Amino acid sequence: MTARKQKPPRRTIRVDLGKRSYPIRIGSDGLDGLGDAVASRTNATQVAVVTVPSIGRRYGGAVMRSLRAAGLKAHRIDVPDGDSTKNLGQIRKLYDAFLDRGLDRRSVLVALGGGMVGDLTGFAAATYLRGIPFVQVPTTILSMVDASIGGKTAVNLPKGKNLVGAFHQPCLVWIDTGTLASLPRRDRAAGMAEIVKAGTIWDERYFARLERECEGVMDLEPASLVPVLERACRIKADVVQQDERDESGVRALLNFGHTVAHAIESQMGYRRILHGEAVSIGMLHAARLSQALGLAPAGTADRLEDLLARLQLPTEIPRYDRKAHIAAIQVDKKRVGAKIHYIVLRRIGRAATVELTPAEILPARGARG
Amino acid sequence: MTARKQKPPRRTIRVDLGKRSYPIRIGSDGLDGLGDAVASRTNATQVAVVTVPSIGRRYGGAVMRSLRAAGLKAHRIDVPDGDSTKNLGQIRKLYDAFLDRGLDRRSVLVALGGGMVGDLTGFAAATYLRGIPFVQVPTTILSMVDASIGGKTAVNLPKGKNLVGAFHQPCLVWIDTGTLASLPRRDRAAGMAEIVKAGTIWDERYFARLERECEGVMDLEPASLVPVLERACRIKADVVQQDERDESGVRALLNFGHTVAHAIESQMGYRRILHGEAVSIGMLHAARLSQALGLAPAGTADRLEDLLARLQLPTEIPRYDRKAHIAAIQVDKKRVGAKIHYIVLRRIGRAATVELTPAEILPARGARG
Repeated sequence: MTARKQKPPRRTIRVDLGKRSYPIRIGSDGLDGLGDAVASRTNATQVAVVTVPSIGRRYGGAVMRSLRAAGLKAHRIDVPDGDSTKNLGQIRKLYDAFLDRGLDRRSVLVALGGGMVGDLTGFAAATYLRGIPFVQVPTTILSMVDASIGGKTAVNLPKGKNLVGAFHQPCLVWIDTGTLASLPRRDRAAGMAEIVKAGTIWDERYFARLERECEGVMDLEPASLVPVLERACRIKADVVQQDERDESGVRALLNFGHTVAHAIESQMGYRRILHGEAVSIGMLHAARLSQALGLAPAGTADRLEDLLARLQLPTEIPRYDRKAHIAAIQVDKKRVGAKIHYIVLRRIGRAATVELTPAEILPARGARG
Repeated sequence: MTARKQKPPRRTIRVDLGKRSYPIRIGSDGLDGLGDAVASRTNATQVAVVTVPSIGRRYGGAVMRSLRAAGLKAHRIDVPDGDSTKNLGQIRKLYDAFLDRGLDRRSVLVALGGGMVGDLTGFAAATYLRGIPFVQVPTTILSMVDASIGGKTAVNLPKGKNLVGAFHQPCLVWIDTGTLASLPRRDRAAGMAEIVKAGTIWDERYFARLERECEGVMDLEPASLVPVLERACRIKADVVQQDERDESGVRALLNFGHTVAHAIESQMGYRRILHGEAVSIGMLHAARLSQALGLAPAGTADRLEDLLARLQLPTEIPRYDRKAHIAAIQVDKKRVGAKIHYIVLRRIGRAATVELTPAEILPARGARG
């Protein structure tokens, strides 16, 4: 009799976009298989891994070893930590680094890190030599279930976040849940906000599962973590498949909570608050507004608030100057004319778009500034 | 009995790319219809016309009037003349100008000018808010038959031309041959080089037509000009339809003459020589090399040389340093590993790709430096 060791859970989801289809590989078995996966998905001979120093120190070694073991010439390019790195000046530096290393059209970029690294690397990949392939290796919950899937890449301008970008799908998303071990609890919770969002707008059963298991996910228990990540990725993939280029309105549902979140982040200068925390506040604001407008039944916002509170996520808009918030909403990319495409709930598991003015989104009676 | 005035010739070609299809409208009847065409092709309320001062002075008034008559709010944004404008710094200034004018995702850009304006405006359109529609209004022969069709947009880096860019199809190409009246004869001839290229790589009958009519086209006689432009646009559209993203090798045939042309332009610092002139030299170099490699029959290069000479286009590589030329070829975007995808002729009307090293493209015996 031999004791059988339980295999670490491992799943593959396919994002089906015709010629631009790609797999999302979720596992707790490390980064060793990454190199072979990159080699089999591309015809690259050279790879540049773009990362931040803190992540590069932890996982850069394993990634480089895996790429080299697969016969690829691998370079590592570090960019400074922090969302302020996500700008055109940094993009220009990346282009120079790619040219210095002789990257050609067959070369592949690997984004190793959180959403900032993925957005920045993805935009560089979208535009260098009119587009080269790239791979997402997200190391935060937020980027695993959201930013790494769907091909939205972007950089910030001084006047606003993500105002410049491109649609450019990765050729592979490699999720190693082991990289979450080093993620601070606060960042984990912030990532959970996007997972909660997925259930809230798309799948009531999934929302209920999160109500049962959110502590297990927060504690990174593989039996909870891998299936919960898988379903969140599946939802994101479904939405992207239905509306790759953000044209039909389906993909816009992912902006649930984000209009107010972006305004809060902008008001706070993108400091002191994490994106997921701002999204948590924005979602509850949207849920309450949905009830106030008679679109969602009573109790909807309370149910969302309870789950967010268990994750220790903030739910109230910080004291603010309403005029400045409204001005921040007005530079929103989703603005068309004077109205904002604002995402409301019809119930837990179902969202819809309505057109509201910034003043309707932030009614004066709600202001505490 | 009433004398019937002959209608100015007018043609429409459709570039068939599924959801990204668009018409190329060629006529000698002015810019008046542009506004209605933009309004009917988009759901824009705002349009920004990007141009250079010299072109804006001549045609900006007619364009703005036409857009406004169609109910569109129109802005004009001037960028400095010259290819050195096509850089990331200028792109950043355009983003700022768009934000200042409140352009949103439904807004449309109009590129009014030559290839530089089209490439720059197209790249801005490809990346502003992750992509907004744009219209090409080319005012040079070169941009009418080549750069304005097919969605290749780009800017230069200090290390090389067109190293950054995106594929982003225009939603309309509006060709008014009247705008060629102000084009210097030298620029007209340079534009003819790309027309000659179209015949040389794709259509022997068209090449023969150019042998018969090239003086009429150079003199802008509508009876020659409109059909000749139409066929060149049709060839470009055919190639793009077969290989929109430059993946299958068909579109690469359009690079006939361009490997050496880019090296010459780079060596000369993009001064003193026009792109079409460099292409003329590069095409004859490629034709001669094709014969020397036994790929094309004797007489192929002579026939091409005769036509280029009638257009008073240069055909000999300027005195040069061979090593520097080879280094310039090595940063070519079309490089994959050590070899260059180089376009050769099989005969007039048929091209093919071979893989050559830079030294094979510029054999030492051909050097005069």
